[in-house]
Amino acid sequence: MSQKLDGNILVTGTNRGIGLELVRQLAQQAGEETHLYASCREPQGSQAQELRDLAAQYPGKITIIRMDLSDEESISAAVRAVSEQIGDDGLNLLINNAAINKPAASATLATTGKKDMMDAFETNVVGPFLLAKMFLPHLQRAAETSPEKDKGDKMSCRRSAIINVSTLISSLQKCPETFPYAKMYPYRSSKVALNMLTCCQAEDFKEHNILVTAIHPGWVRTDMGGEKAPMSAQDSVIRMISVMSSLSNKDCGKLLDCQGNTIPW
Amino acid sequence: MSQKLDGNILVTGTNRGIGLELVRQLAQQAGEETHLYASCREPQGSQAQELRDLAAQYPGKITIIRMDLSDEESISAAVRAVSEQIGDDGLNLLINNAAINKPAASATLATTGKKDMMDAFETNVVGPFLLAKMFLPHLQRAAETSPEKDKGDKMSCRRSAIINVSTLISSLQKCPETFPYAKMYPYRSSKVALNMLTCCQAEDFKEHNILVTAIHPGWVRTDMGGEKAPMSAQDSVIRMISVMSSLSNKDCGKLLDCQGNTIPW
Repeated sequence: MSQKLDGNILVTGTNRGIGLELVRQLAQQAGEETHLYASCREPQGSQAQELRDLAAQYPGKITIIRMDLSDEESISAAVRAVSEQIGDDGLNLLINNAAINKPAASATLATTGKKDMMDAFETNVVGPFLLAKMFLPHLQRAAETSPEKDKGDKMSCRRSAIINVSTLISSLQKCPETFPYAKMYPYRSSKVALNMLTCCQAEDFKEHNILVTAIHPGWVRTDMGGEKAPMSAQDSVIRMISVMSSLSNKDCGKLLDCQGNTIPW
Repeated sequence: MSQKLDGNILVTGTNRGIGLELVRQLAQQAGEETHLYASCREPQGSQAQELRDLAAQYPGKITIIRMDLSDEESISAAVRAVSEQIGDDGLNLLINNAAINKPAASATLATTGKKDMMDAFETNVVGPFLLAKMFLPHLQRAAETSPEKDKGDKMSCRRSAIINVSTLISSLQKCPETFPYAKMYPYRSSKVALNMLTCCQAEDFKEHNILVTAIHPGWVRTDMGGEKAPMSAQDSVIRMISVMSSLSNKDCGKLLDCQGNTIPW
């Protein structure tokens, strides 16, 4: 049976869409020992009003963190801020949700330039790479000290995990099906690289019992997914949390959909 | 049966290793109508002496082109220089061979920084992306005018093709096997993105009858592959040319090894 997510949890890109909904649902179901770190680029900006309102609803439960994943200094500062608060407990769950994308119409071969490619890779891949690297000692700490450690080599999102939010269109095998409606060169090439990061870190971190898994949240009605998407952020996050809650060693280094099914690379 | 490669062929990264050997073998077997464009970063530098010697051996057959794939202006200038020479015949074959890598020991999580990740993506992915984009009209031209056009929708490297030199360690599925001996975060994440570029362009360009395929040259004794690699550049290139010569529609959007076998994504 799956259990509630728990402990110290950091979610990136939380001022809207799936990130905001993740924080909302995790806060709702959080136990006494749970603390949520919710990062976004501009916590004081008008785009983060909903997140601020949400944090105010759960005093002492949600800490808003300023972090711009395209800026290494900003990532370092955010890691320091979180580290100071979590102390010896470590970080149990890092959800790399923040990402940039451009509408499909402006991400074709003709409309994509060098900067589009570089920017997507910087925020969607290098950001999560640096974050995992900087948080590694804290993820190790959580893996070693969580009550879940008594389960031996069993990995879980309650113990110590990185969840990379990826996408169906990162699947190379499915490209012939998905390309016609989502050309998106920068997004695709960044998300497939995030999948590689998932695979590499899964191998690299398994000795520490840190789970690393990529999840496709579905095609969701957000600013990024657009109005035509069939799923609400709420439904997607209900499923994502259910999947995350039940992950174990066999899921490490995989790309799963929000029902928990493996998506072929 | 496979036929010789022919027509206007551009190979990048040709001052050493596999690139230099590709130019050597293609020049050896070239017919009357073949012209080779051999690009490298510093055609006048001491590192390009072998390439200059080779070009001198085949007067009028090999044109050395200056191109730095990390520099968009340099790519534009190279495309202009090649375009002027090829004129109405178009470009039959673009071999994206140039790539940067760092030795495995300096590409672990601990030794990899943001710049390493960004640099690898810039040269290994964005360079080939821009090159394909800029050469698209010339690849289309070749697909339309080559004698091979009489074969209808049949694609080939003699007609119009992009070959992206990729690697076995870009395979996500094989990561658990390959990671322990080749961590290489920047190289892996860039090459898997090059595979995505291959898939996308295969779909994007098939209406023009332009073939796009990724090839793993094997583990080759070059500056990049190191001394312990089991295969010589000569043997690898013999096989690569044999594979390239026999490619057709069914290979479009695939990653093949240098025997022509499909490598799983």
